[in-house]
Amino acid sequence: MRVVRGGDVLDVPVDGPVTVLPARDVWIDGDRIEAVLPTGERPADGHEVVEAAGLLVMPGLVNGHTHSPMVLMRGAAEDVSVEDWFNKRVWPMEVNLNRERVRTGALLAATEMLLGGVTTFADHYFHADAIAEAAVQAGIRAVIAPTFFSEGGPTPMPEAIETARAINGLGGLITGNLGPHSAYTVSESDLTATAAIAAAEGLRIHLHASENIQQTRSSLDRLGVTPIEVLRRTGVLDAGALIAHGCGIVPEDAEALAAHASRTGVASCPKVYLKHALAPVTPIPLLQRCGVAVGAGTDGAAGHTTLDVWESLRLVAMTQKYQEADGTYLTCGETLRLATRGGATAVGLGHEIGAIEPGLKADLALVDLTGLHLQPVHDPLAALVYAVGPRDVHTVIVNGRTVVADHRPVTVDTDRLRSDVAAVATALVDTSHGRSVQHYAP
Amino acid sequence: MRVVRGGDVLDVPVDGPVTVLPARDVWIDGDRIEAVLPTGERPADGHEVVEAAGLLVMPGLVNGHTHSPMVLMRGAAEDVSVEDWFNKRVWPMEVNLNRERVRTGALLAATEMLLGGVTTFADHYFHADAIAEAAVQAGIRAVIAPTFFSEGGPTPMPEAIETARAINGLGGLITGNLGPHSAYTVSESDLTATAAIAAAEGLRIHLHASENIQQTRSSLDRLGVTPIEVLRRTGVLDAGALIAHGCGIVPEDAEALAAHASRTGVASCPKVYLKHALAPVTPIPLLQRCGVAVGAGTDGAAGHTTLDVWESLRLVAMTQKYQEADGTYLTCGETLRLATRGGATAVGLGHEIGAIEPGLKADLALVDLTGLHLQPVHDPLAALVYAVGPRDVHTVIVNGRTVVADHRPVTVDTDRLRSDVAAVATALVDTSHGRSVQHYAP
Repeated sequence: MRVVRGGDVLDVPVDGPVTVLPARDVWIDGDRIEAVLPTGERPADGHEVVEAAGLLVMPGLVNGHTHSPMVLMRGAAEDVSVEDWFNKRVWPMEVNLNRERVRTGALLAATEMLLGGVTTFADHYFHADAIAEAAVQAGIRAVIAPTFFSEGGPTPMPEAIETARAINGLGGLITGNLGPHSAYTVSESDLTATAAIAAAEGLRIHLHASENIQQTRSSLDRLGVTPIEVLRRTGVLDAGALIAHGCGIVPEDAEALAAHASRTGVASCPKVYLKHALAPVTPIPLLQRCGVAVGAGTDGAAGHTTLDVWESLRLVAMTQKYQEADGTYLTCGETLRLATRGGATAVGLGHEIGAIEPGLKADLALVDLTGLHLQPVHDPLAALVYAVGPRDVHTVIVNGRTVVADHRPVTVDTDRLRSDVAAVATALVDTSHGRSVQHYAP
Repeated sequence: MRVVRGGDVLDVPVDGPVTVLPARDVWIDGDRIEAVLPTGERPADGHEVVEAAGLLVMPGLVNGHTHSPMVLMRGAAEDVSVEDWFNKRVWPMEVNLNRERVRTGALLAATEMLLGGVTTFADHYFHADAIAEAAVQAGIRAVIAPTFFSEGGPTPMPEAIETARAINGLGGLITGNLGPHSAYTVSESDLTATAAIAAAEGLRIHLHASENIQQTRSSLDRLGVTPIEVLRRTGVLDAGALIAHGCGIVPEDAEALAAHASRTGVASCPKVYLKHALAPVTPIPLLQRCGVAVGAGTDGAAGHTTLDVWESLRLVAMTQKYQEADGTYLTCGETLRLATRGGATAVGLGHEIGAIEPGLKADLALVDLTGLHLQPVHDPLAALVYAVGPRDVHTVIVNGRTVVADHRPVTVDTDRLRSDVAAVATALVDTSHGRSVQHYAP
C-alpha cells in the first residue's frame, strides 16, 4: 500500500462542518483510499510513503464544466459581448479544429489543471476522443461529452453518440457522456432521441441549458416553456443531466429539478458571467433547496482565460454572497464542499470521488499553506477559498498514482507540450476563412 | 546607469491604446527612467545590466487603498456581515495593536506586495510611523495616512496629524497623508480642521467616504447631504482627497467631484464588496466622466485575505463589466492603465510614477509570461489582466533599486519575518478582552 503520511486532512462530510483533521495518514490500496488514521497509528514499514507533513491533504478539485482544448484560444476573445464572443471569435475559430490540435489543447489543459490540484474535469467539446487520449496520458480523471448541434444535417448526432460510447468504453479514469450542445442549438426531437439512448445505455448527458436569463426569456417567447422544461419533456432530466451554468433557471423550474434532483447537477462558472456581463449568476440557493448538486467550473479558457478552479470556487463564493446580499452565505467550508463533493456529484461521480474516505478513489491534492502570502494561517479553510492558488499545490494523486510531485507534472513532457502548442496556436485562432461552426441566436 | 535590457515594455500612455513595445532597453539613471530605446541601440558597456529578455517590463502596480498591517488578521473575519466584520471582529482585534505588531504586519504586507509586483501602496492605519519604517526597510514606495476617529477625545486627531507630518518629512519613498477615518466616524468640525491643515501644508487626505450606498442613504437621512457633499463643504475635496471605495457615490455628487477632479482619486477594492455582499460596486463610469482618477486597491487583508493587486485589478474589470452589463467596457488595456497610471494619480503621485517614460521614477515589475498556465499568449494584455498572478512576477525595481530578484525579496529576511509574524499572530486576533476601538453605525 501507499501511505500519504502526516498531513492535515480536509474532512468534507456530506453534511455538517468541513474541518481539518491534524496529522493523519491516508492509506491507499491500489486506486482507493483504505483508511484515514492518526499518523503513525499503523506502521509504515514496507509500504511506499508520500511525505505530507506540513501539507494540507484535500480531495482533488473537480472542474464541473469546461471545454479543455479552448486553452489554445486563451486571450483571443476578450472584451466582447457574448454574441460577438460566439459569432466573431469562438465559432469561427472552431472551424480550425482537428483531432491533433484538440489533443494538444487538451493535454495543455490537463497539465494546467493537474498542477492546480484539479483531479477530475467534465469536458464538452469536439474531437472528444482526442480529449480522452490526452486525459489518459496526463493521468487525470475525466467525464467527456462529444458536442453536437442539430444543424449540419443528420450525421453529427450519431457520430457524437458513437464517440461517447467509445469513450465510455475506455473505462479506467474516463467516463463518456452524451453531449448535445444546448437546449437552443439541438432540436427537441434530437434531445428526445439522445435522452432515450442515455437512459437505455446508462450514459449521462452534459449540456448547456438556461445559460443566462436571456435564453430563458427567449425559450419562453419561442416555445412557451423554459429550457429546463424542455429538458424535462424530452427525457433529458430523466436520463440524468449535468447542466452548464443554469444562470437562467427560475423558480418555475424548481418542481422539475427537485423531481430529478438525485441525477441532476449544475456547474457554476462565474468568471465568464462577470466577463460577459450577464447577470444573474447561477441561482445556487434555489438549486440547493431542490436538492440538486452544484459544482464549480471554469468553462473554456476562451472565456475564463485560465483553468484555475481555485479562482472559480472563490468567485462562486463571492458572486453568491453578492447576489444574495448576504455575506454569511456559502461559507468557506460550504464552498470547499461544493468544489469537491458537490462537483463530484454534479458530474455523476459522487459515489467514487469528492472526499477523503475509505472506499473512495484516491484523488488527492496536497497543498502547501506555508507561503508568505498565506501567513498567518488563522483559518486554513479561509486560506483555501480566498488566498490559495494553483502554485500552492505541491503534490497531486489521481486514482492512487502520483501525477504531480513537487509542483512538476510526472506524466507530461512539458518541453514537447510547449513546442506542440506553439506550433498550432496561430493557425487555431485564424478567422480569415470567414466561416463558422454555428451562429449564436438563442 | 542601469539598463533593464531586452524586455518587451508595456507602454501606458495617458490616453490612447496601451501596447507592448517589443525588445526595449529601459535606461535608469539613479532613481529615474532616463530613456526607453530599442534594445542594443545604445551600448551597455560599463553599465549595470538587468537582463529582461523574455520578460514583460511594466510599470509597477499601485495598491490604491490598503491597511497593510491587517495581513496579521488574514482569515480571522470571514463569512460575516459588514456590521459583524467591524463590530465583532476587526475593531475588537484592533485593541491589540501596538507599534511593534503594526511594524511586523506592515513588513509582511510590503514583502507580499513587492513579490507580487506592487511598487507603491496607499495605507491608512494606526501606528502609521511603524508602517513607514517597514516600507523603508522593504524598499517599497508608500503613501501613508495615520488613521483617527473623532471619538476618543481631543488627543487622536492632533497626534495623527503630527505623525503624518513626521512621516511626510521622511521624504524618499515615503509620503505622508492626513487620515481621518471616514465621513461617518469623524465630525464635520474635525474634517474642516483637517482640511485646513492639509491645504496649508500641502498634504493630501486619504479617507473612507460613501463606502457603500447604505452610508450614502444614512448620510442623507442624518444630514440631508451625501458624504461627498460633506467632503466638499468641509474643504476636504479642496485639499485633495484619496477616497476609498466610493461605491455609494451617486449622480448628485458629480458636480462636486468634477470641480475637484484634478486632485481627487478613488480606489476600488471589489473583492471586499463581493465578500461583504454590498452592491453596487464603485461607479467607475461616473467617476471617469467627472475626470476623477481611479485606481485598484485591496483594502486590508482582514477582508481581502490577500494583498494581490492582480486579483484586485481583474475584479475591477469583471465587476465593472457586470455592473454596466457591457462586456466591452474596461478593456484589458484600460484596466492596466487604471492599475498603474490611474492608481498613481489617485494616490497623488501621477507626476512621479505610473508609466515607463523618461523622467518618471523607475518603478518596474518584470513579469514572466512563459508559465504553462499562460500558454499560448495570443494577447499579453489579456494574460496580465485575466491570468497572471503574483508568482509570475520575476523581478521588481523600485526607485531604480532591485528589491525582488528571481522571485525572492532582496531587502527582507523572510525567516526572521516568519518568526516575528508567528510570535504575534495569535495575540493579535484575541478578542476575549471584550473591548473595541470603535462601533460601526454609519
